Parts: sequence; structure tokens; C-alpha cells
Amino acid sequence: MLDTLDAVRRRTEALTAPLSPEDCTAQSMDDASPARWHLAHTTWFFETFVLKPHQEGFTPRDPRYEVVFNSYYNGVGEQFPRPLRGTLSRPSVSEIMAWRREVDAGVAALLQRGDPVVERLVRIGLHHEQQHQELVLTDIKHALCTSPLDPVYRSDLALGPAVSGEAGPGRTSGEEIVAIGFDGDGFHFDNERPVHRALLGPHRLAGELVTNAEWIAFIEDGGYGRHELWLSDGWGVCQCWEAPLYWRKVDGVWHTMTLGGLRPVVGREPVTHVSFFEADAYARWAGARLPTEAEWEHAARGAPTDGTFVEDDALHPVGAVSDLHSGCRHLLGEVWEWTTTPYRPYPGYVAPPGAVGEYNGKFMNGQYVLRGGSCATPRDHIRSTYRNFFQPEKRWQFSGVRLARDLT
Amino acid sequence: MLDTLDAVRRRTEALTAPLSPEDCTAQSMDDASPARWHLAHTTWFFETFVLKPHQEGFTPRDPRYEVVFNSYYNGVGEQFPRPLRGTLSRPSVSEIMAWRREVDAGVAALLQRGDPVVERLVRIGLHHEQQHQELVLTDIKHALCTSPLDPVYRSDLALGPAVSGEAGPGRTSGEEIVAIGFDGDGFHFDNERPVHRALLGPHRLAGELVTNAEWIAFIEDGGYGRHELWLSDGWGVCQCWEAPLYWRKVDGVWHTMTLGGLRPVVGREPVTHVSFFEADAYARWAGARLPTEAEWEHAARGAPTDGTFVEDDALHPVGAVSDLHSGCRHLLGEVWEWTTTPYRPYPGYVAPPGAVGEYNGKFMNGQYVLRGGSCATPRDHIRSTYRNFFQPEKRWQFSGVRLARDLT
Amino acid sequence: MLDTLDAVRRRTEALTAPLSPEDCTAQSMDDASPARWHLAHTTWFFETFVLKPHQEGFTPRDPRYEVVFNSYYNGVGEQFPRPLRGTLSRPSVSEIMAWRREVDAGVAALLQRGDPVVERLVRIGLHHEQQHQELVLTDIKHALCTSPLDPVYRSDLALGPAVSGEAGPGRTSGEEIVAIGFDGDGFHFDNERPVHRALLGPHRLAGELVTNAEWIAFIEDGGYGRHELWLSDGWGVCQCWEAPLYWRKVDGVWHTMTLGGLRPVVGREPVTHVSFFEADAYARWAGARLPTEAEWEHAARGAPTDGTFVEDDALHPVGAVSDLHSGCRHLLGEVWEWTTTPYRPYPGYVAPPGAVGEYNGKFMNGQYVLRGGSCATPRDHIRSTYRNFFQPEKRWQFSGVRLARDLT
Amino acid sequence: MLDTLDAVRRRTEALTAPLSPEDCTAQSMDDASPARWHLAHTTWFFETFVLKPHQEGFTPRDPRYEVVFNSYYNGVGEQFPRPLRGTLSRPSVSEIMAWRREVDAGVAALLQRGDPVVERLVRIGLHHEQQHQELVLTDIKHALCTSPLDPVYRSDLALGPAVSGEAGPGRTSGEEIVAIGFDGDGFHFDNERPVHRALLGPHRLAGELVTNAEWIAFIEDGGYGRHELWLSDGWGVCQCWEAPLYWRKVDGVWHTMTLGGLRPVVGREPVTHVSFFEADAYARWAGARLPTEAEWEHAARGAPTDGTFVEDDALHPVGAVSDLHSGCRHLLGEVWEWTTTPYRPYPGYVAPPGAVGEYNGKFMNGQYVLRGGSCATPRDHIRSTYRNFFQPEKRWQFSGVRLARDLT
Repeated sequence: MLDTLDAVRRRTEALTAPLSPEDCTAQSMDDASPARWHLAHTTWFFETFVLKPHQEGFTPRDPRYEVVFNSYYNGVGEQFPRPLRGTLSRPSVSEIMAWRREVDAGVAALLQRGDPVVERLVRIGLHHEQQHQELVLTDIKHALCTSPLDPVYRSDLALGPAVSGEAGPGRTSGEEIVAIGFDGDGFHFDNERPVHRALLGPHRLAGELVTNAEWIAFIEDGGYGRHELWLSDGWGVCQCWEAPLYWRKVDGVWHTMTLGGLRPVVGREPVTHVSFFEADAYARWAGARLPTEAEWEHAARGAPTDGTFVEDDALHPVGAVSDLHSGCRHLLGEVWEWTTTPYRPYPGYVAPPGAVGEYNGKFMNGQYVLRGGSCATPRDHIRSTYRNFFQPEKRWQFSGVRLARDLT
Repeated sequence: MLDTLDAVRRRTEALTAPLSPEDCTAQSMDDASPARWHLAHTTWFFETFVLKPHQEGFTPRDPRYEVVFNSYYNGVGEQFPRPLRGTLSRPSVSEIMAWRREVDAGVAALLQRGDPVVERLVRIGLHHEQQHQELVLTDIKHALCTSPLDPVYRSDLALGPAVSGEAGPGRTSGEEIVAIGFDGDGFHFDNERPVHRALLGPHRLAGELVTNAEWIAFIEDGGYGRHELWLSDGWGVCQCWEAPLYWRKVDGVWHTMTLGGLRPVVGREPVTHVSFFEADAYARWAGARLPTEAEWEHAARGAPTDGTFVEDDALHPVGAVSDLHSGCRHLLGEVWEWTTTPYRPYPGYVAPPGAVGEYNGKFMNGQYVLRGGSCATPRDHIRSTYRNFFQPEKRWQFSGVRLARDLT
Repeated sequence: MLDTLDAVRRRTEALTAPLSPEDCTAQSMDDASPARWHLAHTTWFFETFVLKPHQEGFTPRDPRYEVVFNSYYNGVGEQFPRPLRGTLSRPSVSEIMAWRREVDAGVAALLQRGDPVVERLVRIGLHHEQQHQELVLTDIKHALCTSPLDPVYRSDLALGPAVSGEAGPGRTSGEEIVAIGFDGDGFHFDNERPVHRALLGPHRLAGELVTNAEWIAFIEDGGYGRHELWLSDGWGVCQCWEAPLYWRKVDGVWHTMTLGGLRPVVGREPVTHVSFFEADAYARWAGARLPTEAEWEHAARGAPTDGTFVEDDALHPVGAVSDLHSGCRHLLGEVWEWTTTPYRPYPGYVAPPGAVGEYNGKFMNGQYVLRGGSCATPRDHIRSTYRNFFQPEKRWQFSGVRLARDLT
Repeated sequence: MLDTLDAVRRRTEALTAPLSPEDCTAQSMDDASPARWHLAHTTWFFETFVLKPHQEGFTPRDPRYEVVFNSYYNGVGEQFPRPLRGTLSRPSVSEIMAWRREVDAGVAALLQRGDPVVERLVRIGLHHEQQHQELVLTDIKHALCTSPLDPVYRSDLALGPAVSGEAGPGRTSGEEIVAIGFDGDGFHFDNERPVHRALLGPHRLAGELVTNAEWIAFIEDGGYGRHELWLSDGWGVCQCWEAPLYWRKVDGVWHTMTLGGLRPVVGREPVTHVSFFEADAYARWAGARLPTEAEWEHAARGAPTDGTFVEDDALHPVGAVSDLHSGCRHLLGEVWEWTTTPYRPYPGYVAPPGAVGEYNGKFMNGQYVLRGGSCATPRDHIRSTYRNFFQPEKRWQFSGVRLARDLT
């Protein structure tokens, strides 16, 4: 566990290493946070939920950090307003790094005790930090990509050409009752429970993710301008969209910003940075629909984590060489896959007591479930039962599309 | 059918009869429309979808009405902005009434032909008009109730005391697969189809609606101020709520505005004008949850329409004398019951082609399903498969709460 | 004075006579008020400032009107929010008319006493009411003109062709110290005092108002698209303007909405419904500037009220046959003339005590002075010292342009 | 001139030296800019207006900087949106510093030629840069002071106690015609011209600035809550004010944030960080008014620059020991003094041609003139004819109050 603590904490720092203090300070929209804030907030999490209740003689680094780096835990107290995080320039990156060291040492010392309560909290803290590792990348990508200067995060990324293979045939299923939710012994979030039974109707799940080439066909068929393809709320917001986020035409050719800079869109790669509204419209255009989260989870049970993950150093869904599972490729990794399922509690779900109970339950409204992890997700963070969730208009995550169809 | 046409159209006019031209013009918020607009829009619906394609030598009353009274049909064309409906003072009520007569005559003449296509469209138009009858009432209630002058819609309403009876025991169910959706021959909306199978888990559905007395206990227990009871989005909007919409304290006693004026809150009556967020928080406070729409529909199959409906002339959920069905009282009538289910398409649903296909499908995002009709709903408009839907923060409909519980 | 009371009060009612109750209820923007509100507010003014302090046994028509019809008098108390005036449908037009009769009778009875304090307050109330007569017209014009139905206020207006004459030569002045402000015995507003001395520089004031033909030349020369002509704040708001308010092209020809309906723009008529920003940009384009209010007032001293006024029943600046004064035509009537002078207090100005003191002084910020009255102004309401004022982006008043130039 | 170039450019860098790269990146509100942006924009100014038109073989550092660092010059082209400046993290502080060196070298080389056109542009650029030096301080003060961490800019500031002296008697004047505007040979901005004659009425100008002690008396007399003291627009915005910006009570004692951190309010110091609305309300409360800009300028002609300026290293109006001039103390330095005069062009003013002409003229709307410079102004930047200007609700500049009174 100490090794994991060290590995995860160092990984966060490695992700921010290519960033200047200036980069770590900018906030480009309300949804995103400065990298400095992520570095501090993940540290605050350990200080607040591990050290404060368990360390003898605990004194906080700075009592005001309790407000400044509290994201949304009403049970802890007031929170500095999220849209203003970019207005704060203190503490500096180096002060935050010193705080990280201090908290790491405290947590490591506590872990020596072998207290299972502490271990459980640390484990939550580490998975929490892995979630923020992905946000560090998506948030800085947004900040860099909205600059007219087209700045680059790293110029040494493994943005090799996508490797094609034989197309996955997909998975066909008749009506069946399946078990959904996490039933193992390892770490999982509260929202993956309770295990419950779900009824799948006859359907077919696509073997491959929707590609950039397919998306361009949608664009060229006028997909962004045909109201009959769109949900009403989506039609409202898509009036200023004409392609996925970060795409633009250069000399008549679609290009996209990556964390390695601007490059031409590669047709065989999975499309990414599309909203639920776009995914849903695309599916309707294609005569299909998005999968339900139960359909997806059932197909993904036992799938190999052989897609592109953060460790592959592409930070872009290049379409890794990977095996089929349930007739499907890339269920895990590459891009988060929008499902048609609103993010709601599983039958019997009750949020845990205390402030940590605010982690998931209170957000179960107005969002859709995404599954499978992305090229920015740590490989050991994902599982087939993992539920991610975002509002339907959001596009700055590495979100993509796998189609499904009803069978009759 | 001619009789129904006449009955429904006259009913709309009867509902606006107590209103002055001034009352018919005011719009008190973006969600609501002036009564004049409802009178005109329902007429536009017949003109556009019945007369225009089927009447020989059709000429519109005024070609500009196509824009002015189009609510949201992109397939028909541009729409005058909804929030600005209250800025229009023409055509006058009497001009709209003349237009209504003209369109009614045209539709009646067309119906003589016995063309089933026309009949189907007229039937949609009539059910559409019944929906607007309810909106006429809820919208004018909002307009009147936000005036400092406490104006009254009608002073002769049947606001008698609620009749109590033996409490309904509720319905207990084990796991079962049930058929959901409209499977009859009569009228239904496209969103009630296809019939499909759904898996219900073991649960218990409450026999009675939540009452005002119970709601006051929630208020007095600090329910509106305890963040742990609320979804995050709900906590955001509820900061300026302290009770259901239209409630206020007079001399220390909770009163509520009704369409018949201000009166003390009656403890035995079903609570109404609460949002999904409030319903959800109340359920959590009560150690329960809201029912799913499948649980509700299964219990309500075959329920009698003996709750309070618009014909009862109370325009307030007084709690009519009524029989138990599935151990439950007031499944139909009184108040729309919030379910825990986001409004999404049934498996296999595809929106019908053409502009009429915009009726339901494109709104399947960001809303929750409500079931059962209300004291402002025409009795012959409701059925157990009927799906109503509103955003979770909305409170100006006659919306209330029935609880459910998981059984294990 | 009783005759004047009757004349002014009846005139207001005559102006609303062509309006239906629906017309009297609509509010088309925050700046405008429903005609019903004007009818009621002017009555509230007499009730609050005349009857309440002076009538024995005074009882208000409805104590809640004190809030509902209070425009902005903090000294009186709370105010119903201005942007929501259009959401109120009660009291009805006929109830307001009954209230008017009642208040008129009360005021008339009080006037019999010959109390000079009462007389002063009644006189303020009547001039206040004349201001609202103009607003009744400009507000209903806005409401009608923003409807896609192009409704007409009156179809019998005297919209005859503009009469041209020999061009006014204008007034040339060297440096001089002049007296500014109202120095007579009659009625005047507090903002016209104290009389004070002002220094005019050498300048020339144009003999004629800028015409529609000249404005079209400005449009055709790209005036609305040349940033160098515009104040920065004006450039911001003018991005969605291409002509004066209410102008649009029909078959390639500029037309304008009038209170008598749509008609082609008449080149010889004075331009109207332009903002200060447009007037200022036009002046820069023409190598000129707007006059200061002191320059204007000095030239206008003693000018005849022979322009178009409300009594001429055109309700549009048709350019009445009129005499020259100081070499200038139409100093009074036709259109309010934007000056280059921000609306600020005269030297020595102190607002009167009490709530009536809120009439003018507290608005002396962020507005520019307009002079001379318009085709919607009662002829006996205007004087050369009269100071009107609006924000620089406002266009719904009958506002126009007279140029000035510095001489060296 | 080379020396001045070097001195001014180094001074800007010295002001940012205490700031970390993080500090240089944060933007705390739309009105303020990141320090990095100021460093870059002032360099862009020289590149755009000096090097680009005059340097042979000119190549820009980065052609995209033309947009990114253009503040508001439409004649130059598009501008990156001001409120988003804080979202940009590149170029870094060190890259900007390198660019500064490069541009400085280019400008220095050009200056060798002795071309008076170049010299004029460089001089404008240096005065422009001095204006931004003041903004560097006020903007970072805002960013630091809105942090819950109360960060300090420099802890070695000369925040010594205010030195009192005999109170200045003030200046009394009868009616007189005076010359206003810059009439010398040295540098001045276009808005200080043309020299023109202005008529002053009989008045008295206060000998001292309003102090914190006097302001506390205003607060304690309920000044922020008495509507009769406020302009209507001011009353709207002041509902959330209870003291000058940056003031707060600590243990019942008024404290204020300075660039040296939090400290108790010193009664004898001039009040600062008050808006025009507050200054105007205070003056009304005191039975006085604000001076006109002509009154102020006439009194200040020839005044010594012996107030507190940026070179004094207090960065706070401590009230320097200084001589009387026209019976007044601290006409120059300490705080910018709000005048009652809206910022409008002098008679005969015409903006210079070209993009540099956008410097002042287009902002002559909706602002009030401030005079005299502040503790953040470079001493050699101010003069008695200097016109500063801000919107009436702004408080983040070092703005204060001197009273005037009409004499009769």
C-alpha cells in the first residue's frame, strides 16, 4: 500500500511536470480547474479525510486551505467558488509540492499502524487522485487548446498511426436477466453497488468504436444542421458546433488539437471530444442508438485492459492493438463511451454517511453514464463496473461513441 | 367524434371564460404562456396539421400565425420566442375566438368525410388541447399567485374539506417481469410505446400520497436546510425555498394560494407544487425513495379514475372519496406523482416521421417522469400508461409525491 | 386649474382609447411599461402625493397599490419590480378607470380649497402625467412594432407628406456668457434650476434637423460598420444595428413602422428613433458634433412651439410647416434632440426634500440630455429650458439629431 | 530618451519582480489583467506602433501576438477577449522577458536615428507603460485581496504612520474664466487638448482629502443605507457594500488590505478605493459636492508633486509630508480624486487619425474624470492637466475624495 501511495502520488506530479507555474495557474472554464488546484485538492483530501481524524496532534498546513481546496463537501464546510479557482495564485506550485511531501509522510506513517479504517480511506484517496490525474490532462488540454497560440503540453507523445485490424463483429444478445454492479472484493466506488438484476432486451452491441472517418461522413451529410436528429436541448446548444471539440479545418482538411499539438484528424482513430448530444444524434443518423449501461457492463465483464491508457503516453485515442472481448474491441481504454442511461442510483443504493458520502450520490441527476475509461485513465483505475458521468453537453473529456441496436 | 371535438374545444373556452382579456395576456415566467396563446396555439395545431394538408383550397387565417403560434415544431418552421409571448397583444381574445370558430367549422366539415388519417390527426389535436387545458390553469395560477394583489380565478370552486378514509395499505411486490406501455386500441401518445418487458425488484409502493401535514413535519425538521438530503443540483436551487410553491405563513400559519384564493393549508390534503428535488429530498428524509415509473404503472393498471379531476371544479387536490386499487388510493387524479425515472425513450422507440414526430421524442432529456394526472387534468385524458415529464426544479404544475421502498 | 386637471386626465385616457385591454397589458421590454400601468401609476401619483397628505379621512383605493404602482420612490416604500409589470393582469382597465374617476373627484374637491401647496402638487402631477402620455405612445409603439403581425395603433393618423421649405441657415455664435435655466414664474422641474451662467464657445448650430435622406447616405457610406466613427461602448451595442429602430427593408426600400403602420421612409422627414451613440457617430461622420445643452437652450429661448406635437395627430415627425427661430427650424417639436451633454445637476442644484425629490436628481448619471420635445409631446408641456434624458443606447423614444460645429 | 526608455521599462519589471509566475498569471475580474499580460501588452505596443512601421526588415516575435496582446485597437485588428486573459498561460514570464529585451533593443536602435516621429511614438509608449505600471499594482492588489489567504505583495513597504500637519484652508474662488488644458511643450495625451476657456462659478475647494476617520463617521451615520444620499444607479450597486473596497472588520475594528497585507485603518490617512457613487453620496451627506475638473485643474496648476507616489514605496496613501498649494494639500499624489465631471471631449477635440487615435477619444462615455495621480502613479507621469477616467461603480483604483462647495 505504501508503494501504491508513492506510485500514485508521484504519477500526479509527473503529469504536471511538463507544465510551467503559469500553466498550472490558468483556468479556462468553470468546469475545469487549474493544475495547481488539482495538486492541492488531492492533498487536501488526504489531510481532511485521513490525517485530521486519525493523526495524533494533527495540525493543518493552513486552516484556510480547508475552504480553499474543498471542492464540494458541504459536510466539511464552506467552499471557495469553483469558477474563481483560477483567480488564486497562492500557494505556489512549490509550496503545494512541499505540502504534498508533508502529507505523504503523515499518511505513510499512519499506514504503518495497519488500521483498516485508515487503509480504506487511503485507498479512496488514491482512487480519487487517479480521477484527478485524468482531469489534470483534460483540463490543461482545454486551457492550451483555447489559446490562439496552439501551445503543446508535450512534444514527445506516442502519437503513432492507429493500427487497424479485422473489424470486431460485436455482441448479439437475446432477452436475458443479468447481474449488474461490483461483486468482487477489491476497491470500488459506492455508486457501483448494490449488485442487482437487470433485464436486457434483444440487442446488438457494435464491435468497434465510431471512428473519425465515420464522423466526417456524419458532418458531410449535414448532421450538425438537421434538427430531426437532435434532442431539443442538444439542438439548442449545437447551433455553434460544426465538429467535435478541438477540430478545425486547416487548408480544407480537418485537424485536431492534441496534447502533442495540432495534427490532421486520422480517420481510423476513434472519434473523441463529442458530447452526449452529438453521440445521440450520430446514433440516430446511423439508424442505431447508444447502449444502455447494463448492456455495456454485461458485455465488458472480464474485458482485457488493452486499449490505450495514460501509461501508453499517447494521451490520445490512437486505437491500440487489442483483442476482442464479447466480439468487441476497445471496451476498456481509448475513449469513455456515452451510454443512453441517465446517471441514477442502483436499486437499493444509499449514500454512505458522513462527508465522504457526498462523493457520488448527490450528483445523480442531469448526467449520463459513460463507461470504459480513456487514453487519459490510469490502467489500474478502470473496471467494467466503473460508472463515470457527465452532463450531456460536455465535450472536454475523452468521450466517444459505441453504437447499439435493438433486435426484434 | 364531432361531439368530442365540440366538447373539448368548448371546455378550453370555458376554462378561460372567468379570465378578462388582461388576464389572458399576462405571462409571468418563461415556462408559462398567456391564456390567449393557449387558445390560439391549440387552434394553430388544427389549422397546421389538419386543415393545411387536407382541406381543399385551404387558406390560413393569417400566414404569419404559422410563426407566432408555433410552439417548437422545427419541421413547420420558425417560432416566435417563447419568453416573449407575453409581449404580444394581438390578435385579441375575440379575434382568436372567431378564428377558433372558423377552424372548428373546417375541421368538422373534414371529419364528415370519414377519412381515418384526418380522424387520427384530429384525435391527436384534441388530446393536445387537453394538455393545454391543464396548462391554462397552471399558467394562470402562476400569473395570479405572483401578484401582490392575491387575485382569484374563480370564487365558486368546490374547495371542500378533504375526506379522509382508512389509510391505503399500499402494494408489496417481489421480483417480477411486467409488461409496460400502452397495449390497447385507443388513443395514446407515441412515448407510451413500444410495449416492453421490465424487471421490477422487490419493493413496496405507498398506499397514500404524501400529505401537507407530513410535509410540514419535514419543514419543521429542517428538511429544506439539510444538505445531506438533497441532490447537489437541488441544493443549489433550494436555497431560496422554504416550503412548496405558493405557500406562505400568515400569522404563523401556513397558507397556500389556490385558484380560489388564499386559504390555510389543509393537513390531510395531498401536498402539491413541489419539485422533483423536493420530492426526492423528502423521500430520503422519510427513509424511502420515489417509485420507478414501471413500478407505478404496473400498480396503476386498471385503476379507477376516481380522484379529483378538472371536472370536479376544485382545481386543487382536495382528496376525493375514492376506492383502493392495488392497495393504493389516488393513483389517478389529485396530483401528478414524481417518479425516480428520467424521461427517456422506451426500448425500441422511434419518433414518428414529420413535424408531429417532434411532439414527444425530442424532449427525452433532463426531465423526470410524472404519472397519474391531477386535479387540473380532464378525467378522460389520463390513463395508467400516460407519461408526463418536467424538469426537476419545476414546481408550478400540480405535482406531488407517493413514496416507495426497496424490500430485501 | 380644474379645467387643466380634466383636460390632462382625459387626454391620457384618449390616448389609450384605441387600445384593447390586451394592448394595455403587454410589456415588450424592461424599459417600457404596459399602458394599464401608466393609467394606474399617474393616478397613484395623485393619490400618494396629493390625497394621502391632504385629504381628510383619506383611505386608499387599495393599500397594496402603494407598492404595485410605485415606480421608483424609495421614500414611499417598496416597489414592484419594473421588468415584471407586464406579468400583472389586475386591476383591469375598467377598474383602473373607476379608480381614476375617484381620484379625480378627490383632487378636484381638494382644489376648491385654494391651498397653494395642493395646487403646486397637482401641477407637478399634471406635468408628470404629460410625461407619461408620451411614454404611453412610445411604449405601445415598441410593443406593437416588435410583433411579427405589424399591428397598427390608429389607422387615421395625419401622416401627410413632409412639407419642405427654404433651409434654415442656422445660428452662428462667438464666445459669450449666457444665462441658462428656467427664470420665469410658471411651472418647471427642479432640474431646470438654478439659473446659472454658462460660457459658450464660438460655434454654429444647424438650421435643420438631420433628415432620413441624410441618414440613408450615412448607412450607404458604411456608417454602421466603421469603428472609427463610434464611441467604444456604442461600437459594442451597434453590432446588431444597421439602421434606426423600426426601419426595415421591404423589396429593397427602407420602410419604417409608425403608429399608423408600416410605410416607406420619407427622405425629407427628420430621422428619429436613433440612439445617442448613433447620433454621435453620425455627427463624426458629418465632420460635426452634437450641440451642448447650453448652446441649444440659448438658441431656443423664445422659440415658437410650431413643430409637430401630439395634438397634431401624426405621432410621427412629419416636419410641420414652421417658422425659423435663431435661424433654426423645429427647435421645438418633431423629435427630441440629443445633446453632447451628460445629464448632470446645474451648479447649485439640490434635490428637493421628501419623496418628490426623487423625481429628477437621483437619475443624474449615465444619461445624456435631450431637448425640444417631440411629435408625441403635448404642446403646452415643452419649454426651451426643459431637460429630458435617456441612456445613450436607447432608441425607442422619438429622438433625433441636430448638428453643431466649432468655429475657430 | 534612451535612459528614460531603460528606466521605465526596468521599472515595470521591478514592479513584477516580487510576483511569482503564478501571481503573474491570475486574473481576478474582467476589469483587471494578469501581470504577465501587462508585461506583454506594453511590449506589443512598442512592437506594433514603433517597430512595425519603422524598423527595416521587421519581423514580429510571433504574428499571433498581434491578436493576443491587442487590448482594444480595432484599427490594428482582432483582439483576444479581455475577460479571458487569465486563461492564457503562454508565453511564460521568461519568454515575455526575452521578448521585452528584444523589443527594447530594437527600439533603442531606432532611437539612434533621431527621427522625431519615432521619438514621439516612443514617448507615447513610455507614458502608456507608466499607466500600465499603475494597473499592475491595482490589478494584483485585487487578485491578492480577493483570496481567502490574505497574501502579501511585499512585506517591506514603507507603510509608516500618516503625518498630520495644519489643515489646509482650501481655495475660495469667485466667478472667473480660466484656461483649461495642456498648453506647454512637453508630453501630454490628446485628451488634455485643446486648451479652452471655462467659466468657474463661485466655489470653495477643500484643503484636504477626505480621511478614513471622516469616512467612518459616514458609515456610522448609516451612509450606506440612506437612499436619499445616492444616485439611483449607485443605490442599485451599493446594496452589497458597507465600506470602501478591501475594508473589513476584525474584532470590531476596521482593517484594510494593503499591498503589504492586512492592517488597521488609519484615521488620518486619505480614504481610498471608493467609487464615484460613494464619493458622490459622501459629498451629499457632508453638505458638499465633488469639484468639477476645471475647478480642480485651475487650483492644481503649478502644484508640487510632493504627495505619495509609487517611488515612495508605500503603495498606499499614507499622506506624505507636503506643502500647501492654492491652500490645498495633496492635490498631486496619494489618491486619484473623483470629480463631478463626466469624461467628455474638450471643445474642439478631434481624435488623432490611425489606431493610436483609439487611445482616448472612444472612451469618452459613461465615465467620470479623476485627477491628480495616486500612490501607485510614477511621479514624473502626472501633471495638473492629466485626465484619468473610470466608470462610477469602479473601486479597485486608488481613488479618493476632495470636497467642493458652491458659494453664493
